[in-house]
Amino acid sequence: MNVKEKLFEKLEQKEVEMIQHRRYLHQHPELSFQENGTANYIKSFYKDKDVVVTQPVAESNAIIVEIKGQHPGNTIGLRADFDALPIHEEADVPFKSTNEGVMHACGHDAHTAYLLGLADALIDIKDELPGTIKIIHQHAEEMPPGGAQQIMASGALSDLDEVYGIHVVPVAGPEVIGYNTGNAFAGSSTFTLTIKGLGGHAASPHKTHDALVAGTNFVNTLQTIVSRRIDPSEMGVITVGSFDAPGGANVIQDKVTIKGTARYLNDDLEQFMYEEIEKVAKSVAVGFDITYDLDYQFGYPVLYNHPAQTQAVTDILSTSQGDYFKHLVEIPAVSGSEDFAYYLKEIPGTFFIVGCKPEHMEDPYMNHHPKFEVNENALLVSAKSLGEIAINRLSAKA
Amino acid sequence: MNVKEKLFEKLEQKEVEMIQHRRYLHQHPELSFQENGTANYIKSFYKDKDVVVTQPVAESNAIIVEIKGQHPGNTIGLRADFDALPIHEEADVPFKSTNEGVMHACGHDAHTAYLLGLADALIDIKDELPGTIKIIHQHAEEMPPGGAQQIMASGALSDLDEVYGIHVVPVAGPEVIGYNTGNAFAGSSTFTLTIKGLGGHAASPHKTHDALVAGTNFVNTLQTIVSRRIDPSEMGVITVGSFDAPGGANVIQDKVTIKGTARYLNDDLEQFMYEEIEKVAKSVAVGFDITYDLDYQFGYPVLYNHPAQTQAVTDILSTSQGDYFKHLVEIPAVSGSEDFAYYLKEIPGTFFIVGCKPEHMEDPYMNHHPKFEVNENALLVSAKSLGEIAINRLSAKA
Amino acid sequence: MNVKEKLFEKLEQKEVEMIQHRRYLHQHPELSFQENGTANYIKSFYKDKDVVVTQPVAESNAIIVEIKGQHPGNTIGLRADFDALPIHEEADVPFKSTNEGVMHACGHDAHTAYLLGLADALIDIKDELPGTIKIIHQHAEEMPPGGAQQIMASGALSDLDEVYGIHVVPVAGPEVIGYNTGNAFAGSSTFTLTIKGLGGHAASPHKTHDALVAGTNFVNTLQTIVSRRIDPSEMGVITVGSFDAPGGANVIQDKVTIKGTARYLNDDLEQFMYEEIEKVAKSVAVGFDITYDLDYQFGYPVLYNHPAQTQAVTDILSTSQGDYFKHLVEIPAVSGSEDFAYYLKEIPGTFFIVGCKPEHMEDPYMNHHPKFEVNENALLVSAKSLGEIAINRLSAKA
Amino acid sequence: MNVKEKLFEKLEQKEVEMIQHRRYLHQHPELSFQENGTANYIKSFYKDKDVVVTQPVAESNAIIVEIKGQHPGNTIGLRADFDALPIHEEADVPFKSTNEGVMHACGHDAHTAYLLGLADALIDIKDELPGTIKIIHQHAEEMPPGGAQQIMASGALSDLDEVYGIHVVPVAGPEVIGYNTGNAFAGSSTFTLTIKGLGGHAASPHKTHDALVAGTNFVNTLQTIVSRRIDPSEMGVITVGSFDAPGGANVIQDKVTIKGTARYLNDDLEQFMYEEIEKVAKSVAVGFDITYDLDYQFGYPVLYNHPAQTQAVTDILSTSQGDYFKHLVEIPAVSGSEDFAYYLKEIPGTFFIVGCKPEHMEDPYMNHHPKFEVNENALLVSAKSLGEIAINRLSAKA
Repeated sequence: MNVKEKLFEKLEQKEVEMIQHRRYLHQHPELSFQENGTANYIKSFYKDKDVVVTQPVAESNAIIVEIKGQHPGNTIGLRADFDALPIHEEADVPFKSTNEGVMHACGHDAHTAYLLGLADALIDIKDELPGTIKIIHQHAEEMPPGGAQQIMASGALSDLDEVYGIHVVPVAGPEVIGYNTGNAFAGSSTFTLTIKGLGGHAASPHKTHDALVAGTNFVNTLQTIVSRRIDPSEMGVITVGSFDAPGGANVIQDKVTIKGTARYLNDDLEQFMYEEIEKVAKSVAVGFDITYDLDYQFGYPVLYNHPAQTQAVTDILSTSQGDYFKHLVEIPAVSGSEDFAYYLKEIPGTFFIVGCKPEHMEDPYMNHHPKFEVNENALLVSAKSLGEIAINRLSAKA
Repeated sequence: MNVKEKLFEKLEQKEVEMIQHRRYLHQHPELSFQENGTANYIKSFYKDKDVVVTQPVAESNAIIVEIKGQHPGNTIGLRADFDALPIHEEADVPFKSTNEGVMHACGHDAHTAYLLGLADALIDIKDELPGTIKIIHQHAEEMPPGGAQQIMASGALSDLDEVYGIHVVPVAGPEVIGYNTGNAFAGSSTFTLTIKGLGGHAASPHKTHDALVAGTNFVNTLQTIVSRRIDPSEMGVITVGSFDAPGGANVIQDKVTIKGTARYLNDDLEQFMYEEIEKVAKSVAVGFDITYDLDYQFGYPVLYNHPAQTQAVTDILSTSQGDYFKHLVEIPAVSGSEDFAYYLKEIPGTFFIVGCKPEHMEDPYMNHHPKFEVNENALLVSAKSLGEIAINRLSAKA
Repeated sequence: MNVKEKLFEKLEQKEVEMIQHRRYLHQHPELSFQENGTANYIKSFYKDKDVVVTQPVAESNAIIVEIKGQHPGNTIGLRADFDALPIHEEADVPFKSTNEGVMHACGHDAHTAYLLGLADALIDIKDELPGTIKIIHQHAEEMPPGGAQQIMASGALSDLDEVYGIHVVPVAGPEVIGYNTGNAFAGSSTFTLTIKGLGGHAASPHKTHDALVAGTNFVNTLQTIVSRRIDPSEMGVITVGSFDAPGGANVIQDKVTIKGTARYLNDDLEQFMYEEIEKVAKSVAVGFDITYDLDYQFGYPVLYNHPAQTQAVTDILSTSQGDYFKHLVEIPAVSGSEDFAYYLKEIPGTFFIVGCKPEHMEDPYMNHHPKFEVNENALLVSAKSLGEIAINRLSAKA
Repeated sequence: MNVKEKLFEKLEQKEVEMIQHRRYLHQHPELSFQENGTANYIKSFYKDKDVVVTQPVAESNAIIVEIKGQHPGNTIGLRADFDALPIHEEADVPFKSTNEGVMHACGHDAHTAYLLGLADALIDIKDELPGTIKIIHQHAEEMPPGGAQQIMASGALSDLDEVYGIHVVPVAGPEVIGYNTGNAFAGSSTFTLTIKGLGGHAASPHKTHDALVAGTNFVNTLQTIVSRRIDPSEMGVITVGSFDAPGGANVIQDKVTIKGTARYLNDDLEQFMYEEIEKVAKSVAVGFDITYDLDYQFGYPVLYNHPAQTQAVTDILSTSQGDYFKHLVEIPAVSGSEDFAYYLKEIPGTFFIVGCKPEHMEDPYMNHHPKFEVNENALLVSAKSLGEIAINRLSAKA
């Protein structure tokens, strides 16, 4: 029995426990940056095990577990996030959230659960492993600036050679693993533009500086950023989600507030779109004699899957295709954001998808939906796939 | 002593009483269509007088007082309105509003007070008068559809030969009377446009019909009605006062609601602007695949001062210029609306202005301001001017 | 026979000669700033007469004829313009233009003809007149900067007390004289905006700065100047007459050229509209990363008829109403421009209209039309009306 | 020596001749649909060879050469186009165009030259080949509707199992071959929108229907198709290349003409973009009371490289990488169009790129530039690559 076989045997033995972890976590979700109970649960899990557990970020719940092999080898990071969302659960499951208004609606409970199982199995066989595995239990993925950036800033991962992670998504069942190369998850930014004019009576626009008309002009000119200024073959979108200017029919308003978001699959566009949006705001100020305040927040950057590591992953998983999962498929980039992007900005690696569509759902509820559910078979698939990647890459040559 | 001299002597004797009426009414303001106390006050004033008092509009507070002269002559209407506004008074006067949140901030208290005094004086001398005077105590001027339209619809004024009225305005003191000919007060309409699209995720605009962008396009195209479709020498304005579409930065909205008003000094524009606004709404529906609901309300029409009657008024007042007032001035049309317009649509007459700027105010608060005040000298000026017009026109030839 | 009777007798005697002048000039039209033949014709007319003829503007055809009375009195200017237009005449008259492509299509031939007759008559009776009359034969009215500005700049009219002029217009026949007070003819400016971007291939807009889309944005934002920034009761219009950007469907252009005009009836708007148009151009530059060149030319200012002089003119003409003409009517301000405005900026006076609709035309061709015609009865009406104004105002007290 | 080796030996022997063909064709370029001399040149080349030459499209210059092998096998099409462009050559080559104003600026001379050489070599070895090769000498690639569509419509290729083609592009030298899978060349459409309003005088916009402002509104609203209605991850661009509305500053125009193009990498967008553009035109008609005429021309569709055949090509070429060329690279989709798309709509196959950057150029002139040049080493690379694909696929199993 080789190492992979031993690992898989261990994981199969631990499957029920992984599911128990997942259900416990599901019942006890905690919001980003407030995951104290979850962190305690994780720490107590490692309590008596032969590993080094650290919390690299002061006043946060990030936990890093170092599993040292016996031989020289690479240092490989495996990450799962553990925060939940401010959503009132509507899923009909027996282990429903007990924390009113908070829900594991994005599958981070599953992520953490399989990674606990995988870490446990790796610890069991660590004497047969080269190199070092760093298990990264990450806090606060759902709320920018996010936990990843903090962990990277702590320096705790400066020795990693590669880093890997998984997200469960119900577009398919657990028989499907999806990967892609290069820019894979969109970067996003949000902005709030406040336009300040001079209000007055509806019948005397010439005595005012009409903030509302300046605002509608801003939104219209904004369209030209996507239509004319971004490479048509690049993904780029700017949405204005809020135009907040309620008032009386007879009154010209002093102020309007506009909110929106920019999305992109190319890091260069992060700064570029900011500059163009600012430019349009400025042009409205010049043209309509108003002043503005643009509060622009960069969100998570574009997540870039490194080609060599993605290739390695697909090579490794190809050998198991037909075994514990059926299909390894290339998937298109997605418009969602992931703070795993921060790890990949500095460390080679890749981030991939395991299907989690429940068997009883034809048309499953997606992540972030109050009725989102996870097919728990995805736990073992996730653990095995990330596990075989890890043991394989411990001895990979640069 | 001729009739005019007698009338003026009576009015001077009643000045203090007029001021008392005005202060009482100021302390007891009532909202449009709810002026029951005010109507009772007026009716009890006429109780024992030799006049016919009728209430021509069922379930409303309109009061018409018929003062019949001894000789044949014209039937002349004199109108004052008596409703108040939903404004919390901030004026520092001893007879402040006792009806919390309601205020005589437009001077209708003064209108009614001087007309009570004038009616009283006319009753005193009615045996010396030809023709008939109809005193019109009008309800609900401030709220479309307004009291004037209801009174006209009742048929109670079908026998009027001419009709006159006054508004007090603090642009000048009571030494100034202002008039103008032709279109004098603007017509106005209001509209609420609801745009219904299809909402969705900010990153997937192609799966939505973006109501917000359709709405900003509507506002921008709307500008071309005034800029390109209305005679540049005509007064015309369209203001969007409300763009109500608050939301999250990441969500494309289903629906936005836009409110605005149109103003014009030419009756033809009332229908024209409606049609053009509807046209722009329709074009947005066609261009953006959205549906809309346009709730369009015609407000008061343009107030048209008949040239012959306006000329008559200026001829009459010219003879008194330098006596009880100093300046008779032609004033430009104003952008405000007045439901006196409905009388003038069918009956010849004119509506003019008496200054009511308080002596202690350099820069007076205008009508509808919480600190609006009336110089009470305006009561006698109003009563005398409208009085001498009335007695003069009773014997005017068509 | 009083002076006015003598003047009118003379003018009647000279009517045929005036018509001959008019026809000669009609046959020999000359473009603005090139009216040498016309100027020689005028100068030879005055050759042997007892007047001082000067040409106050170097290298131009302006002619001033000073007619001095015997007694002290005012100095009154009477002006007629004499340039023609680059229009190919299509009117069916026996004295058609012999200068191909040039036509007296605005009636300046008639203006000059009646003024020659009037000057002649005034010279005949000058010993009976007080004061001085200055006959102003003006060049180049049709082409800004125009002759009037040059004549004013020369100082030749610095001694005028008042100035008067007439335009013939075929909205009515010669039995009608029209006047108005205050702002009477619109001011106008023209502009050419050149937008310079960076061209390129239609499929790669992100490598360009699309001048065309910047240009359409400019035109759209421009609408808000009239719709939101000008007093709705003021006449104001901005028209873009030219958007010159022809090209291939597949090519993004480097440059577009936009031309337009602004019109206004209030002098304050001349500078204001320039500033707002510049502001919109600047905003487009900021918003679209383009550069621009705005060539803005102020045309003739608003023509202001002074109230006192206009009143004097209507008082004078009222006494003749029913005699040599039938109707003296107040007319609305017109959107056309006149460089007589420059005289009225510094000298009191008024500019009025004499009807010139031909009897055989039901629906006459307006000024500047290739088929424009003049009812020659307008010559005597013009000469008499301006003549009686002149002799009356020579002795007017300030 | 296997068949491939024999073929390559033949091709090497014919390289000089290929270059001669290319230079001859370069000197004698002919416009699309007028390539009579070129067709004669090609036909005379095949005159005495043992092949069937047909001209499947009546009144056109398309030539199909059928090379029959001895054994059963597939029928494989190889296509080269031979028309030139209306460009005045500025390249400094000794074999410059002798047809003034016409130039082989897109490399079709090179395409035809290598295919003549390849056909010749295949004829030489045809007794050793299975199946049938159809050499497609295509006319009129540069001008929609294009030659490919006509040839397909003729039915002459209904027996093809697969079809292949090459374009030379100077982004790299002949050591590089580029391929991609799926949608590879953009589809494009062009449109001309004529907006008819009602012209008039600049000062009276209310008497007109301003076509120019309607046109700028059209262009602005058009931006929302790309910004809001197309999947952000899809390539889509709409460029307005022409806004043809020259005129005087003082005149409101009757009519403006707008031209543009749409590009897309997804066939579904062809119809979708047409419908959306029509929708925007219609909305402008509704909103501005104008009429329009939209002349919309679908150009070449999206070129789709079939995955299986592309995989086959890369498999075949991989075996030669390092031999007659150095790099086989995957390239991104391009925004240019190719009528080879019509073949691939019905026949499996792929279309790929051979580098043709001249050695003496650091920064080469691209296709369609007057100074475009071809590195003639590309001829042999093209012939060998297409040749080995052909002989390989003759015996491929479906």
